[in-house]
Amino acid sequence: MSIAFLPSLRCQLPVLLILVQGVFIVVFILFFSFEDPSSHFNTSNATTTAGDDDLDAIFPLFKDVHVMLFAGLGLMLSFLKLYGFGGIAFNFLIANFAIQWSMVVQGVFYHFRHGVILLRLNNVLEAEFAAVTALISVGAVLGRTSPVQMLLLTAMEIPLFVVNDWLVNKYFHIIDVGGTVAIHIFSCYFGLGVSQILYQSSLRRGHVKETTTSNSDLLSLLGTIFLWIFWPSFNSVLAKTKEAQHRAIVNTFLALSSGTITTFAMSSLMDKRGRINLAHLQNASLAGGVAVGISADLISPGGAFSIGCLASLACSLGFQYLTPFLAKKMKVQDQCGIHNLHGLPGIIGTVGSIVVILLGPVDKYGLSLHENLFSSSQEGQHPILGVFRGGETWTAQSQALQQAAALGVTFGVSLFGGYITGLLMKLPCFVHPSKDDFFDDQLYFQIPEDTGNKWISMDELQKHMLIPLKHV
Amino acid sequence: MSIAFLPSLRCQLPVLLILVQGVFIVVFILFFSFEDPSSHFNTSNATTTAGDDDLDAIFPLFKDVHVMLFAGLGLMLSFLKLYGFGGIAFNFLIANFAIQWSMVVQGVFYHFRHGVILLRLNNVLEAEFAAVTALISVGAVLGRTSPVQMLLLTAMEIPLFVVNDWLVNKYFHIIDVGGTVAIHIFSCYFGLGVSQILYQSSLRRGHVKETTTSNSDLLSLLGTIFLWIFWPSFNSVLAKTKEAQHRAIVNTFLALSSGTITTFAMSSLMDKRGRINLAHLQNASLAGGVAVGISADLISPGGAFSIGCLASLACSLGFQYLTPFLAKKMKVQDQCGIHNLHGLPGIIGTVGSIVVILLGPVDKYGLSLHENLFSSSQEGQHPILGVFRGGETWTAQSQALQQAAALGVTFGVSLFGGYITGLLMKLPCFVHPSKDDFFDDQLYFQIPEDTGNKWISMDELQKHMLIPLKHV
Amino acid sequence: MSIAFLPSLRCQLPVLLILVQGVFIVVFILFFSFEDPSSHFNTSNATTTAGDDDLDAIFPLFKDVHVMLFAGLGLMLSFLKLYGFGGIAFNFLIANFAIQWSMVVQGVFYHFRHGVILLRLNNVLEAEFAAVTALISVGAVLGRTSPVQMLLLTAMEIPLFVVNDWLVNKYFHIIDVGGTVAIHIFSCYFGLGVSQILYQSSLRRGHVKETTTSNSDLLSLLGTIFLWIFWPSFNSVLAKTKEAQHRAIVNTFLALSSGTITTFAMSSLMDKRGRINLAHLQNASLAGGVAVGISADLISPGGAFSIGCLASLACSLGFQYLTPFLAKKMKVQDQCGIHNLHGLPGIIGTVGSIVVILLGPVDKYGLSLHENLFSSSQEGQHPILGVFRGGETWTAQSQALQQAAALGVTFGVSLFGGYITGLLMKLPCFVHPSKDDFFDDQLYFQIPEDTGNKWISMDELQKHMLIPLKHV
Repeated sequence: MSIAFLPSLRCQLPVLLILVQGVFIVVFILFFSFEDPSSHFNTSNATTTAGDDDLDAIFPLFKDVHVMLFAGLGLMLSFLKLYGFGGIAFNFLIANFAIQWSMVVQGVFYHFRHGVILLRLNNVLEAEFAAVTALISVGAVLGRTSPVQMLLLTAMEIPLFVVNDWLVNKYFHIIDVGGTVAIHIFSCYFGLGVSQILYQSSLRRGHVKETTTSNSDLLSLLGTIFLWIFWPSFNSVLAKTKEAQHRAIVNTFLALSSGTITTFAMSSLMDKRGRINLAHLQNASLAGGVAVGISADLISPGGAFSIGCLASLACSLGFQYLTPFLAKKMKVQDQCGIHNLHGLPGIIGTVGSIVVILLGPVDKYGLSLHENLFSSSQEGQHPILGVFRGGETWTAQSQALQQAAALGVTFGVSLFGGYITGLLMKLPCFVHPSKDDFFDDQLYFQIPEDTGNKWISMDELQKHMLIPLKHV
Repeated sequence: MSIAFLPSLRCQLPVLLILVQGVFIVVFILFFSFEDPSSHFNTSNATTTAGDDDLDAIFPLFKDVHVMLFAGLGLMLSFLKLYGFGGIAFNFLIANFAIQWSMVVQGVFYHFRHGVILLRLNNVLEAEFAAVTALISVGAVLGRTSPVQMLLLTAMEIPLFVVNDWLVNKYFHIIDVGGTVAIHIFSCYFGLGVSQILYQSSLRRGHVKETTTSNSDLLSLLGTIFLWIFWPSFNSVLAKTKEAQHRAIVNTFLALSSGTITTFAMSSLMDKRGRINLAHLQNASLAGGVAVGISADLISPGGAFSIGCLASLACSLGFQYLTPFLAKKMKVQDQCGIHNLHGLPGIIGTVGSIVVILLGPVDKYGLSLHENLFSSSQEGQHPILGVFRGGETWTAQSQALQQAAALGVTFGVSLFGGYITGLLMKLPCFVHPSKDDFFDDQLYFQIPEDTGNKWISMDELQKHMLIPLKHV
Repeated sequence: MSIAFLPSLRCQLPVLLILVQGVFIVVFILFFSFEDPSSHFNTSNATTTAGDDDLDAIFPLFKDVHVMLFAGLGLMLSFLKLYGFGGIAFNFLIANFAIQWSMVVQGVFYHFRHGVILLRLNNVLEAEFAAVTALISVGAVLGRTSPVQMLLLTAMEIPLFVVNDWLVNKYFHIIDVGGTVAIHIFSCYFGLGVSQILYQSSLRRGHVKETTTSNSDLLSLLGTIFLWIFWPSFNSVLAKTKEAQHRAIVNTFLALSSGTITTFAMSSLMDKRGRINLAHLQNASLAGGVAVGISADLISPGGAFSIGCLASLACSLGFQYLTPFLAKKMKVQDQCGIHNLHGLPGIIGTVGSIVVILLGPVDKYGLSLHENLFSSSQEGQHPILGVFRGGETWTAQSQALQQAAALGVTFGVSLFGGYITGLLMKLPCFVHPSKDDFFDDQLYFQIPEDTGNKWISMDELQKHMLIPLKHV
């Protein structure tokens, strides 16, 4: 059997990447600088820039997010038997492109002054948060899109994320320290939008290469565990005060922990023999982190514990019942189950935040709530709520409404953006794999000849023998 | 061959987990709070709680311990060919349950005031140290107990650990910054106690499934390396002063490093062909960290270097000679060799600490020793030694006696607790695997059909062929 | 087939290691101390030593470098199918020996006062940087040297590194925050020197065991990613000011990121079918970090971005064209391609630093440049440039010359040292593997019998069958 290959891959992938890097070199040389253009260079303080003291606070979190994105998510995505490199290496590629592209877009959007984009580690961290969305969305079409298509998806999603993020945070003044709405909900429905357009009827009965091995499942679980370990950093990095950060860390840990035990319980319960499903474990044990993100700095320990249980419950059920339903009835094929890990827990978390805002924290963390709100509102004014400073018109009800509105707008923007992007990705001019070669590294990587995916198993061996084996 | 399964697993595991999480939700909602109940909520300082400034100091160590427990120990335990998920996933489950349960027990024991358990990141870290004991003890019966039995073990061990930890630290005023006695000795003999009760005569000649593969051994070694990297954090997290922490970090590194080289030397020496035994490497290279824990902040670099060599020497010899002896003569089957990694080095370390207290540090670190002692003695009195403050009755001799007494008491308490727990775990009502299905993931996980453990090797193939292969 | 073994291994390896540890125990006990001998012990400040406040700054970077050396580099080196343990475990052994040996050599060289080597965490970090050189050099002869030979290489290289490091930094006053010259260039040409002496004509057509598997390639890529994640820590740890550290972190990230995308582009471009070569990805995605090291705290973001692209470009081309050329024409066999990852990017980086010094930063970072220079020059005098303090004779031209001189001297010293060391390693008295057993763990490790490297593949099966298989 000849090895399949994509003749157009060599034309498109290197050309696209070289083009992108060429343009970025020019952009970085011309516009990015470590120095604030509003300060003068020749004074003795030239090399000291504002915000410098934050390095010690930001750098550890920067590294944690790095581990999550590159090692954690990369390993987690390499769960397929024949598509391990497609998981970890394309994640590596897409993450880098997404971060660079986000630095440019966010640089123009937020940090462009006097013809210069002031670059601090903070910008890179900000860009990594944006990059997460592309990496999540790609999960919906993992293994059935070429790297060229994935780059296209990323190129489209990042600017839309920046706009929606601005809407959600600056216009709707959402309270969402962990990015549950702006990151998880957005990337989930963007990815599902793309997936719906790229619907593959041939996948309805599954795909012969869409299998895992013990080893790939174990490495994927290791990836999950790396994400799990550093998730508290992710949810607390944007907290406004030390105390809020402290609560966000502990609450995220609690939600992850209760969610993990719930995942074991649910997965065992849903199997006839009481066994754990590894896909559940790889995903649903993280659902608590997604759901608690939006209120991690606000709620009480008991609340975080409960939300974790609820999120992992929904995620497990989603894998078992909703994903097959969506694939069959709604023509939405969700390869990695991003709807279960990011969509459902995101909605649960947002609803939870509304409940918390309406009922709970006014007594307890009201002050902190107000502080969150005001520091995110630079003008002290709000287009809908009117004057903010002094808190005259701010009410729990209005904030609850804002949370819901932000969720709704994000849902609409991301789904619409996903549809447009999917249509673009479907254009025949872009290289895409044929159905037989879905979920196969051989198309994209020079993998070792005697690789694991060609080993013969006892069962297979039986089939191939003219004369039977003695016994197996 | 039909796949074995445990009919009772589905009844017991999910029910137990849901019950536990249900109870914990109520407990966390009713009793856990981020706010000190002794402060008033309505003042402007409401959200600022004492101990807040420690977040920057604790959070990095919290993450390091996380990596050790979930990634390091998880990987290390997945060294068996057919029981990789049993290693990493059950470690994940048990760790989460143990941490939650410890938070409750330690919360009631130490932090319960005015009807509220004040929750800080510090509590979670404290709980993770307790959880370590359960994870170590489980190693003695790895692969031959069901998750239900492991949860039972954890449920029993955590409260006993809290009591013994209090005895060791508050009653005997042990000097033990790294928890060598309270954590390693305790968990080792608790686990061995359980193992002795759960003795399986069928395992005397080994078990057909108790094998490793190159890949599982490599991942296990990677787990060891993660533990190795972050062990200095573990041993230094409880140090009282910056200088003590500094010494604990460097000493732990030195002991690990000299121990690692000693392990290579001993392992090569004990093999006829001079080859390294991977089980030695996976375990004995960490023995220095266990042994040096008790005196990491007290001793000199040369002392740490020597203790590391000694501990790894003992651990290697233990694997080669003591473990088979214990299994045959004492009916103690120690699957992971926890006695070699935690028991022997723990005893060496404790004896070393006594030598150090009697001979060495009075001249050098005497001051620091006193400080350790007094800050751990809240009342300034000691039931045996009498009045402490002012140091009138404290002598090196009395402290050496206390160290020995703490070791002895821990030994007794843990072994007795292990026996009781083992008897409980043996009750027929709890689900347990049959002998044929020891060390097998298939009972507990929906593992991929075409999994690595069914590949055929050249040797096996020879056996199965009616007609011989041309050549191999 | 009988398993090969080395009769002399058991005589030499343990004896050598025990001897080394024995000597080091004595040295550490006699000479290493946590206390500054110039302070008196009996004062109340006895346990407080200068430099103590740095612990919080150094410890995180110490851990990052640990992850890079032990987990990252270890995994990266375990890319061979049958030599995974040779990669990760020998890296573990060599790293530990190299760090201990460096602590002794650097201790005598830099920290020996009043008969005592003052030991701080800083020394250990310093020793780890030295150890890196041995680990890199070993890469050139990976799999075809015994651990005894590797230990010999390390024993020779560390003292030479310390001398050359002193020359480069104290005599030539190089500006090189990331050790591009002192670490990467030095270790590369030292390794190549050794490799040229140990030339194996039998390897000209490759070696049957020098292959990878999907799994070993994936784990190696994971190792690369760990190195990639923490490289900014490596390049910034020696930065003099917070602002310089900030720039070094961001610039290193940018160079790594642009280099990674360039690697994907180049690798795809150089394959007929546009596929990515995993060896390129495992190596060239790190080249930006090597190249940018020397100027990471000086250059602008655009400069770092460009250097990253250039370095990965050179590294990819090197793997494709230069490595085969060196092996054939120059008799330099470079197993891991260290010349592509450390040599070429190192030269590019050094040339880049000269360009930057001549053209760029005098306007911008001139002040910082001067500060770097003066703080490294304790005497305020320079043998060639004359009086420094006051900056009378310092010019960009003179500094550029110094950079070039340091590069040249390092090149000469390392290559010469490599030749001498190679000749020593070649002595027949030291154990070395036979040609058939290159790249084979079986010589050195008790690997599982049913290990992955004996599985049969479909293609192999065909060859072994007397009667054909039905279909494949």
